[in-house]
Amino acid sequence: MNGATALVSAASDSGIDVCFANPGTTELALVDALDKTRSIRCVLGLFEGVCTGAADGYGRMLGRPAATLLHLGPGFANGIANLHNARRARTPILNLVGDHATWHLPFDAPLTSDIRSLATPVSGYYGYVGEPAACLPRLSEAMRAAWTGCVSTLVIPTDVQESAVAPGLHPPAPSKKINPSFSGESVEAAARAITSRAGSIILLGAGALTAPGQNAAQAIAAATGARVFAETFPSRWDRGASIQTVPRFPYFPEQGLAILKEAPLVLLAGAKAPVAYFGTAGLPSELAPAGTILSFATPLDDAEAAILALAKALGVVATPGRAADLPLMPSLSGRLDPQTMAQTVAALLPDDAIVVVEGATTTPFFFGASLLSRPHTVLTNTGGAIGQGMPVATGAALACPDRPVVNLQADGSGAYTLQSLWTQAREGLNVVTVLCANRAYGILRVEFDRARIDTTSAVADRMTSLDNPPLDWVHLARGFGVPAARANTVSELAEILARALAGKGPFLIEAAMW
Amino acid sequence: MNGATALVSAASDSGIDVCFANPGTTELALVDALDKTRSIRCVLGLFEGVCTGAADGYGRMLGRPAATLLHLGPGFANGIANLHNARRARTPILNLVGDHATWHLPFDAPLTSDIRSLATPVSGYYGYVGEPAACLPRLSEAMRAAWTGCVSTLVIPTDVQESAVAPGLHPPAPSKKINPSFSGESVEAAARAITSRAGSIILLGAGALTAPGQNAAQAIAAATGARVFAETFPSRWDRGASIQTVPRFPYFPEQGLAILKEAPLVLLAGAKAPVAYFGTAGLPSELAPAGTILSFATPLDDAEAAILALAKALGVVATPGRAADLPLMPSLSGRLDPQTMAQTVAALLPDDAIVVVEGATTTPFFFGASLLSRPHTVLTNTGGAIGQGMPVATGAALACPDRPVVNLQADGSGAYTLQSLWTQAREGLNVVTVLCANRAYGILRVEFDRARIDTTSAVADRMTSLDNPPLDWVHLARGFGVPAARANTVSELAEILARALAGKGPFLIEAAMW
Repeated sequence: MNGATALVSAASDSGIDVCFANPGTTELALVDALDKTRSIRCVLGLFEGVCTGAADGYGRMLGRPAATLLHLGPGFANGIANLHNARRARTPILNLVGDHATWHLPFDAPLTSDIRSLATPVSGYYGYVGEPAACLPRLSEAMRAAWTGCVSTLVIPTDVQESAVAPGLHPPAPSKKINPSFSGESVEAAARAITSRAGSIILLGAGALTAPGQNAAQAIAAATGARVFAETFPSRWDRGASIQTVPRFPYFPEQGLAILKEAPLVLLAGAKAPVAYFGTAGLPSELAPAGTILSFATPLDDAEAAILALAKALGVVATPGRAADLPLMPSLSGRLDPQTMAQTVAALLPDDAIVVVEGATTTPFFFGASLLSRPHTVLTNTGGAIGQGMPVATGAALACPDRPVVNLQADGSGAYTLQSLWTQAREGLNVVTVLCANRAYGILRVEFDRARIDTTSAVADRMTSLDNPPLDWVHLARGFGVPAARANTVSELAEILARALAGKGPFLIEAAMW
Repeated sequence: MNGATALVSAASDSGIDVCFANPGTTELALVDALDKTRSIRCVLGLFEGVCTGAADGYGRMLGRPAATLLHLGPGFANGIANLHNARRARTPILNLVGDHATWHLPFDAPLTSDIRSLATPVSGYYGYVGEPAACLPRLSEAMRAAWTGCVSTLVIPTDVQESAVAPGLHPPAPSKKINPSFSGESVEAAARAITSRAGSIILLGAGALTAPGQNAAQAIAAATGARVFAETFPSRWDRGASIQTVPRFPYFPEQGLAILKEAPLVLLAGAKAPVAYFGTAGLPSELAPAGTILSFATPLDDAEAAILALAKALGVVATPGRAADLPLMPSLSGRLDPQTMAQTVAALLPDDAIVVVEGATTTPFFFGASLLSRPHTVLTNTGGAIGQGMPVATGAALACPDRPVVNLQADGSGAYTLQSLWTQAREGLNVVTVLCANRAYGILRVEFDRARIDTTSAVADRMTSLDNPPLDWVHLARGFGVPAARANTVSELAEILARALAGKGPFLIEAAMW
């Protein structure tokens, strides 16, 4: 058995069943091992950012790591932005990166680079497999880290991939999530604090943004006079009918400060303490008043169990949210704009859909419009690196073939990793992309306005306009093998979306708003 | 004057006249400064790899740095692959990267990352502008490094961009290339060595791959019994009629070893010592026999002047190459394949064209077919990071609006940074992309064959096939606003290419070879 086969077999034994790959010459032995092992499904991406983002979507939905296969430093570099998002989402991922043979590395051949320096900012674990005997120990370490919610990166030189590895040296690698738990003492402290201070804020992180977690949190809030919010960019969030409604903590710091300024207590259940997304002169970075934070479940704990334990400690009983009560469909003769687009998607959302949101212009409207949509799971851009939506939708659809995926996308962010569409077509994934085509970097214009910079001036306008030439998303999607159509009105959007959701495989709708 | 304006003004004074930009919220003050200064042309890219690759193409053609404007760590990360290539090309570039305010950085907001760790592998100079007084000193250091042929990266927090900077603290920044030279002693040593050892090899790097450099090198070879080669992946290479023909040093190590094995002397003029592109078991990394290397001009020296001095020392007189003697056009009724595609481009190449080569399947044929094409400049993929061709073609066309640019591209590599097409359309650049659409990662299949791995097995085939679904490049180009057509035969390619070259603005030809 060579090193590549040993690594692939051990990865498979450790729970890896999918590999999002864009290999090159330094990964040939790994491809060969994947071919011979046959226990890991290989999915090709035309760009590495597709692979890493798909692994993020896959891991978020299933709670277990996918692998990626990337080509040396430059291939890894193309995947960094979506690994940044995955790191923020605490998604388990195993990156396998080929490198030059150990004996070839000193000669600085063209593709040589400092992979460690590139990888460490986005990797909770980084390992270099410098000799055959290190294959299985490093893999075991990498999987252990991954199963705790980390991006793990293993760099494997070609000579190590090709060298014989003695069997029987297989240290046990974990094959399931390493038990997250919570502290009973923290729960007791939280119970004491919240009952003594009315007007508290409970901030839920992804771990608590389940149906039981939100139902319990709202019961606690009702009993104690607290208010519940979801963190602004959760890695996943179950929502909709039958689940208690929880508002999203706002993106802009002024709004967040207004919510928190009178709070005597900010209870964190799986969320980090709220921090301004960007620093704004004159406003604090930390949004909660000093001394008010009490974290009774960290993002690495089992926040759902912690909030259920808190409810129990307080003697409150959770109730489900309102039953299916579909949100209002906007007037079919109305103007297609970000709000009516979001309302149309919310009204037509099928049961158990996965909604991947990236478009900054439509997302806030969607959160408001979908409170009583059919139950669904939202995946957000956790790290702010643009180009997350299409790849994450790809990986989520592969992870959950029986759940429809809707990708609320925009033209600016969509253009980053549009190669994802090809993988969606190749794998026949049920992803319907609804793309807000406003032909502008809309959120950037908002930020210019907030900074009181004139966006009609030449450079600022030119840096935020996408209208010359216009992007034609129907052409772009078809170019990657995805059927597509343009909707110019609410009525057209509703008709095309219903048809796309009823069909199989990917579809893209360009919602024209220019 | 705030920090942003001070930096932009000083960059302009130091020779920056173009900025390839994809800014975000942490670059607002820099955009505002670019707006107010108006001495730097701002060109928007839809993806940061377009910006950094365009800066590489610009710098290679003009020998002076362009700036990029990138959004924190994730934005920079998207540009790393093409900065890797630029570093290998020794292209001067100034990256300006916004970051969180210094006082906001400790709070680990979503977009926070270790930019230094990401940047240093591709940056000859890295500077963090931690306070307003550091703006101009850091800019001066960055420009000094850039003008010696480096990628320089400056990270500027938002509060520093917005803070007042006292005038008069402007340390002199260089505004032209820092004098490369060569050592007369090295030339004398080279003269002695080459005259005493017949059968030597002269390897020319980009600095010597000019008309005078190659004409002198061939005169030296004729007088001394040496043979001349061009390095395999030069950053630029002037070629064609009226220039002495110089063959390209081969890509595969077996071929390189065969050339060098009997050489008593390998004279380097602006080239690095030849090293195998990838390590192959049983073959050495260093291709020249031990003790045969003599470098008389490093890649940082003025290699053209050094080779002219060597010719003078040897008393040989350079003669130009054969006059315009257009290469044979392949039979119009012949089959369209990588060879006939390359021959057609070579035959129709206009005078003074810039040819950006990336497609690994067609490039070797082009080098062979274009020896007597009209004089042209070739830019190659210096670092092996895929996705270089379209961005470099974009930057080269912007640098040289009066020279036609032909981008020999392929479907696999083209899919990495196809967003470049939009910038080509937006800026009206004269880039004709001729794309070899073989619906496969052809070079990877060759490497699989070399490694004796069966590419018809399931995974290897799936990792190298791009045929399901097929990419439709006519749709993709039109989606980005670039007119396009498909050529199915040599005759169609010749007709469409001639028409595209006669027109203005970008055009894409999908050369169908599936």
